[in-house]
Amino acid sequence: MPTLTEISAFLAEVFPQSRGIIEAVDERSCRLRYRVGEADLRPGGTVSGPTTMALADEALYVATLAAVGLVPLAVTTSLNINFLRKPAAGQDLVAHCRLVKVGRVLVVGDVLVYSEGIEAPVAQASGTYSIPPGSTAA
Amino acid sequence: MPTLTEISAFLAEVFPQSRGIIEAVDERSCRLRYRVGEADLRPGGTVSGPTTMALADEALYVATLAAVGLVPLAVTTSLNINFLRKPAAGQDLVAHCRLVKVGRVLVVGDVLVYSEGIEAPVAQASGTYSIPPGSTAA
Amino acid sequence: MPTLTEISAFLAEVFPQSRGIIEAVDERSCRLRYRVGEADLRPGGTVSGPTTMALADEALYVATLAAVGLVPLAVTTSLNINFLRKPAAGQDLVAHCRLVKVGRVLVVGDVLVYSEGIEAPVAQASGTYSIPPGSTAA
Amino acid sequence: MPTLTEISAFLAEVFPQSRGIIEAVDERSCRLRYRVGEADLRPGGTVSGPTTMALADEALYVATLAAVGLVPLAVTTSLNINFLRKPAAGQDLVAHCRLVKVGRVLVVGDVLVYSEGIEAPVAQASGTYSIPPGSTAA
Repeated sequence: MPTLTEISAFLAEVFPQSRGIIEAVDERSCRLRYRVGEADLRPGGTVSGPTTMALADEALYVATLAAVGLVPLAVTTSLNINFLRKPAAGQDLVAHCRLVKVGRVLVVGDVLVYSEGIEAPVAQASGTYSIPPGSTAA
Repeated sequence: MPTLTEISAFLAEVFPQSRGIIEAVDERSCRLRYRVGEADLRPGGTVSGPTTMALADEALYVATLAAVGLVPLAVTTSLNINFLRKPAAGQDLVAHCRLVKVGRVLVVGDVLVYSEGIEAPVAQASGTYSIPPGSTAA
Repeated sequence: MPTLTEISAFLAEVFPQSRGIIEAVDERSCRLRYRVGEADLRPGGTVSGPTTMALADEALYVATLAAVGLVPLAVTTSLNINFLRKPAAGQDLVAHCRLVKVGRVLVVGDVLVYSEGIEAPVAQASGTYSIPPGSTAA
Repeated sequence: MPTLTEISAFLAEVFPQSRGIIEAVDERSCRLRYRVGEADLRPGGTVSGPTTMALADEALYVATLAAVGLVPLAVTTSLNINFLRKPAAGQDLVAHCRLVKVGRVLVVGDVLVYSEGIEAPVAQASGTYSIPPGSTAA
């Protein structure tokens, strides 16, 4: 299994727009922190839905990399998200991802996203990553 | 019903990060174009999933505004997306949204996203916007 | 492409609990009718959610069979459904399914479910069927 | 909070087709067992997708009743399910449901479904129940 440092370095290389900070990772779960910026805000003093979706998607990608190795071409095939509460505008988002299937071709997981300072999750997501046949981990 | 020009102006004001261009809108559907930039690309020469999700979400927002009036605080409550094919890296994305329910509280619709030059859709999404009680259209 | 009669016969054989009646089918879409019975009703004089889900799932299966041939072992890998309005208790449900991707391994489509006598759809679904490698059409 | 016995009796009354057996329930989670029968099987010696969906939906309903009281008219507004592995044909299904939001109007939760004798979950679902305004618990 690649280490947190190896996954962070890999992510910075293949996906430089990524802004999530990996805080913890093991072979079936991970935790990502995201520093909300001005560009992420929406009318009503909250964080935009797409920001939260992007973080959930990135958490699934990190957990996939930890589970199957550093395969750059893993792609999202589906994502479902329920927005539960308004995140606080000035606070970090933190995503907790847990894998429920690690197959040869598909990896499936769910994610709870928290807004720092609010106890209950602000969003719940689940999604699927597909591993292209013949992928070799970097 | 607000006009295309009014919705575009409203969007630019309340949601300045928005990059979708409204090409057509009526009271149950709309079409949005998105000029893919460098920051939207992913390893493998394709457009990132979050870019596609953000466009689907924005298309649902535009269709909601057309259907219920210019309510700034409408928020996504759920979004589901299936990625079907790789979009072409250098091409615009175009989202076609159709509403299937316009209720007092909830608006539900689906979206097909196309990558210019590819006939079949690259993504299919469905989602729900919630209209806060007591909202008055701007 | 198998005919409507061939698909109906196949369905009756491999999936005898099926109660949907195929009314129309072509290589990218189909229409199924379901006669709602006592066991399908829910408190409040409406049709149960699982009945509507089962019909949406069966419509996706029929469209898959029409698109890829009579493969018995195609299985649902994901289904998403939004319930939009209460179906009428004593009326048939009618599902309209449209495929948006027919791949070698995955078939993806969406479904609108109507309750006879109500113009707007009562449910909207999308889902994915997976074709096992090496499947041969019956 | 209603007891397990009270919820079971209520379910038998308002939803007699229900076949899930409540094994545990508290105010944010529940566990349901379902005895798979002949009518639930699918080609290939497995349990049908609709059976698994119906169980996930019922688990969300039971958890909703435990959280908000015995409101008969709570209805599913959305359900998303990923099928992860083939359940064993002759084994019970067991659903573990956890609520992630209990609002005045909406209750949201997720469900993992297990097939007895298989350690990993066979399905993962999330869904939303809506509580009609003015509902009074029975």
